[in-house]
This record gives sequence, structure tokens and C-alpha cells, in this order.
Amino acid sequence: MSFMLREIHEQPDVIARLVTEEQSSADKLAREIERREINFIIMAARGTSDHAAIYGKYLLEIRNKLPVALADPSIFTLYSAELKLDRALVIGISQSGQATDVAEYLKRSKEFGALTAAITNEPGSTISQVADHTILCHAGAEKGVAATKTYTSTLAALYLLSASLSQDVSHAERQLKRCAEAIESAITLEGYCADRAERYRFMQDGYVISRGFNYCTALEMALKLAETSYTGLLAYSAADFLHGPIAAVHESEPCFLCAPPGKAYEAMLDMARRLSERKAETVIISSDDEILSLATTPIKIEIDVEEELTPLVYIIPGQMFAYFLAVTRGYDPDRPRGLSKVTLTR
Amino acid sequence: MSFMLREIHEQPDVIARLVTEEQSSADKLAREIERREINFIIMAARGTSDHAAIYGKYLLEIRNKLPVALADPSIFTLYSAELKLDRALVIGISQSGQATDVAEYLKRSKEFGALTAAITNEPGSTISQVADHTILCHAGAEKGVAATKTYTSTLAALYLLSASLSQDVSHAERQLKRCAEAIESAITLEGYCADRAERYRFMQDGYVISRGFNYCTALEMALKLAETSYTGLLAYSAADFLHGPIAAVHESEPCFLCAPPGKAYEAMLDMARRLSERKAETVIISSDDEILSLATTPIKIEIDVEEELTPLVYIIPGQMFAYFLAVTRGYDPDRPRGLSKVTLTR
Repeated sequence: MSFMLREIHEQPDVIARLVTEEQSSADKLAREIERREINFIIMAARGTSDHAAIYGKYLLEIRNKLPVALADPSIFTLYSAELKLDRALVIGISQSGQATDVAEYLKRSKEFGALTAAITNEPGSTISQVADHTILCHAGAEKGVAATKTYTSTLAALYLLSASLSQDVSHAERQLKRCAEAIESAITLEGYCADRAERYRFMQDGYVISRGFNYCTALEMALKLAETSYTGLLAYSAADFLHGPIAAVHESEPCFLCAPPGKAYEAMLDMARRLSERKAETVIISSDDEILSLATTPIKIEIDVEEELTPLVYIIPGQMFAYFLAVTRGYDPDRPRGLSKVTLTR
Repeated sequence: MSFMLREIHEQPDVIARLVTEEQSSADKLAREIERREINFIIMAARGTSDHAAIYGKYLLEIRNKLPVALADPSIFTLYSAELKLDRALVIGISQSGQATDVAEYLKRSKEFGALTAAITNEPGSTISQVADHTILCHAGAEKGVAATKTYTSTLAALYLLSASLSQDVSHAERQLKRCAEAIESAITLEGYCADRAERYRFMQDGYVISRGFNYCTALEMALKLAETSYTGLLAYSAADFLHGPIAAVHESEPCFLCAPPGKAYEAMLDMARRLSERKAETVIISSDDEILSLATTPIKIEIDVEEELTPLVYIIPGQMFAYFLAVTRGYDPDRPRGLSKVTLTR
């Protein structure tokens, strides 16, 4: 079995381990955030980790009332900016812990007065050495170049932090356990994804659309497909998609929609109807039969979890779809051309 | 002449007018930011205005030390979040001033204690009524559906605010005047853009890449092309592009690069070399002959301005290229299918 597929399967165990091992680190950081009277958060990350950061933004803003900015590391690495950060928490996210620009962002932020934290899969790695606090992903070694289990475990780490801040840790533990079951259940769609991937053998461009908590899922799914199958799909929030890009949708254009039940569902249902009118080819991931009935390829998620946790579940078919699309194209998903596991940028 | 082309030509005048008319509004807002001891900024915007907000983020972080977050309006409109905003400035950007979710974001932010400001082309419009302060774009009526002059004037408005905050207003006035001349000069590339557009008649997917201050230019250029010519080009920062998407670049793939002189130039030169090795088709906008020599289609900007102002100049060939690509495809750039001038989303 390839690394990527094996690591997709490991995700329920990783989530369960993380909850047990990292609750106290999350709690320690949460207490320090309160003590320091932090009034905003900045997250520094690249690629897949940046998508996790976007999840963290929705979560911490909606559940914890803390505004979150996403860092442009180049303001430090290229432009030598000096931010005022005495009331800020800066979280650096890197699964390898080696991202040089994220490490630099943390280092400079600390100099400018920020409380700092690292979320990483590697204990003792560079960003963890730089930061005041660390939450570990406990995902074990990830050998697939396309990150899968480190992505979902980073989301879970952010969820733990959010729960510690709102002091509902026991609720969070129950929810994450249910979420691990839902991921397990989503993985049973493997055969179906393998089968359906063939239809998309020659897909080149198209769109991945979601909204709210699952905007990160759209971005991450588009990236997995690009990394393993060299497609050029664009990811959009459904709201932004209406401000221009929808004009480019043509008949038969592939559009992937992530539409879990919750507050963003109505907007996604409306989007599905508009795309259906334009005769787009729609791959829809949902647990709701109404929107699934509009899909060319419906992907049904059987277990409901609370909306805040749906991104951990809804990315699973995306990961599997990316894997099987690569296979049906004759590519090796473990060895994407021109990519290495650790990318260093300044 | 079409609305879009006429409005592209109006941009030097608009910038000049804005400097004269709005310096005092920018100054009033800057003094209030200091008085209220604002320690971070949130910008709420959609589409083209969101690209201007990204410019504002780089500018205010690098020049004014104030961390900037970009808003996800859905945290209020869908999820009814309650942010802690007593030390925040929230800037809503909407050229029509009618964006419902931006207005809602401003309204809620004010309830949660934020200082609020609107940047809009319409005096008395909804967002200007909601906000404590307004900076107007003075672009005159914009009839083209693809925003051009309201985009560059929004950038200029943000530049004025930044200058007021750092109290170097007279320097800023001189620089903006020079910038208006550089835009005028870039507009003389019109015939060249019209001529070269034909080569891209059948272009469908590809990339637009820049970095630092001109990341917004990459996003805005990709959007102009999508709106007028229905292409599906993806915009990336050069750093993020290395974390995955570069794997998808194939021989002959069209890649547009914005590479003005400045701190981001070396990263762009490196990117141009990598793309050249992969035999990509490169359209490079720069004033530097070294990087231009690597281009399939070089677009030379003749007048240098300081790096902070290059986004106002480097988008001009992008706007013209989008216009002429639409024309050579037989589309009406003033009437993109499925789009209207004002898009209302919640």
C-alpha cells in the first residue's frame, strides 16, 4: 500500500491519540493567553498548514471571540517590518517544524513582544525550539509528500486549544471521539472514490467551493488534487465565487462542493442550484440528500458531527479522490514531480 | 470605446484627484487611530476590493507596524460571532458601498467596540453611513463590470492613510504624483498588449505569480482575466507556489509574473528561472531586463516608482491584457456573462 493511502487510514487513531496526549499543553497555552490579556492572534503557515490556519481563524473567532490574522511571512523575511505585538499570540504551524519563514516569523514576533506557540508533528523541531509553547500532532512519521494525517491532526490541535479557551474540554473530547468515528466511516467510501475517479481521468481545470468552516476544505482539496494529479482547480468560498469567478463556469466544468449540514448549508445549496443550471459537472460531498440529488457524482457522508468538526471529516473523500485520480492517471501519489517533503522558503 | 478601456485610461487623473481631495479625511482617521490606541486592523471586502485589502495589509504592517487581519464576513452573517474589538480598527471596502456583508461586518464590529472606516467610491452609500470615518475614491462613475479605476484608487486611498499614520504626507503626495505618471506610461503599452493578446486566444488554465506587495496584483490580474475572458488562472505568492502547486506546471503552461524591482525581485527571478527550466510559457511584467530576458512575452514597465506603489502600476498591463484577450475571443468586456456590477452576498 502507498504511504499516502496508509496515512489516510491512520487518521482516526491519530486524532484519538492527540486528544489524550495534548489536552494539557493546550490548556497551559489557553491559561497563558488569558493571563497575558491577548486580544488578537496571528497564524504563520504555508501550504497545507496554511489551510489549517484558516480553519483556526474561523474556530477562534466564532467560538472564542479572538480576531485572527493570517501572517504574510515576507513582511519579516523580505521587508524587515517591526510589528507591535505586545497583546498578540503568534502561532506558527509546520508539520516538519522546519519551515524557515515560519520559524523566522515566530522569532521576530517574540522580539516584538508576542506570546508564541508552535503546532508541529516533530518534537524538538526548529519552530518548537523558538516558540514559548508547543502542541504536538502525534501523527507519527508522515512519508507521503502530500500531507494528510498531519493536516487533520493540526485541525484537531486547534480545536483542542479552542476548547481549552472556552473551558469545555470534556465536551470537546466527546466530540473529537465522535469525529474519529466519522472519519473511520468516511474512509469506507474508498472503493466508491476509486471507482468514480476514472470519470475524471482527463479533468484539468475546474473549481472546489465551500463556505464558512469548510472554506479550508475547499483549499486543501484543490491542493491535494494539484499535488498528486497536477490539476489546476481553483478553490473559492461560495460568497467570493459569486464576485467574478462564476462567470467562467462553462457546461461540463467540474465543480467540487463541500456542503455539510450547518450554517453554510443554504449558501451551498444555492450554489449547487446555480451550477446545475449552468450544466456544470458537480461532485458534491454532503450528508444531505437534497443537495446530493443535484450532483453528477454524489459523495454521501453518513455520520453527522458538529459543524465545527466537519472539516476533519469532509476532507477525507478529497484526500482519497486525489489519491485515486493520481493512480488512474498512472502517477505515483507518493512521488509528485518537483516536490519534496520539506519546502524551505524565505 | 468600451467602458472598461475608457476607465483604464482615467486612472492617472483619478489618482491625482484623490490625493488632493482625501488627504484630510485620511489624516483625521489616522489621528483617531492614535488617540484610540488601536493595536490591530481588520479589513472586510470581497472580490477586487479584497485584493486592495491585501495590499493594505502589506502596507500597514510594513510601514505602520500595525498587524492586519482580513475579515471572513460569514463569522457575523452566518455564525453570529462576538469579537472583542475595543482596540481594533475595522475598515470596510466596497466600491459601490452596497456590499451587504461588508456593511454588516462594520455594523457588528462597531457594536463590539471597534473604530470603523469605509473606503468607497460612493459618498453617502450604505457602508459610509455605517462607518465612523470615510475615505472616498473619487473615481467617478465606473460602468465597466470589471472594476479597474476603483481598484487603483482604493490602493491609493490606503497609501494615503498609511502616509498619514507615519506623518510623511508631503513625501506621499510626490510619490503618488510620480505613480500617476508611471500609470500614464504603462497605458502606452496598450498597442503592444492588444497585439500580444492574440497568442493567448485559446489559453484556459495557468498561473499568475508575484510576491510581497504585488501578491495583490497577481490575484487581481487573475480575476480580471476570469471576469472578462473566462480563464481559470490561479494566483499565487511565489513562496506558496513552491509548496505544492509548482508540481502541476507543464510544458507550455502560461504563467504570468509580476516582478518589479524591490525586495521581492530575487524570489521572482528564481521563479522565472524555475519556470523557464520547465519550458512554461511566461508573460513577465517588469522594468528589469534580466528577468524580462527569460520571458516568452516580456512586458516592460519604463518608469520606476517605490516598491510600495508598484501595485498601482503593475496591474495596468494586467487590466489591458484582460481587455484585449476578451476582444480577441469575441467577448464584450463590458458585459461578462452571469455578472452584475453589484454582487450582494451574506
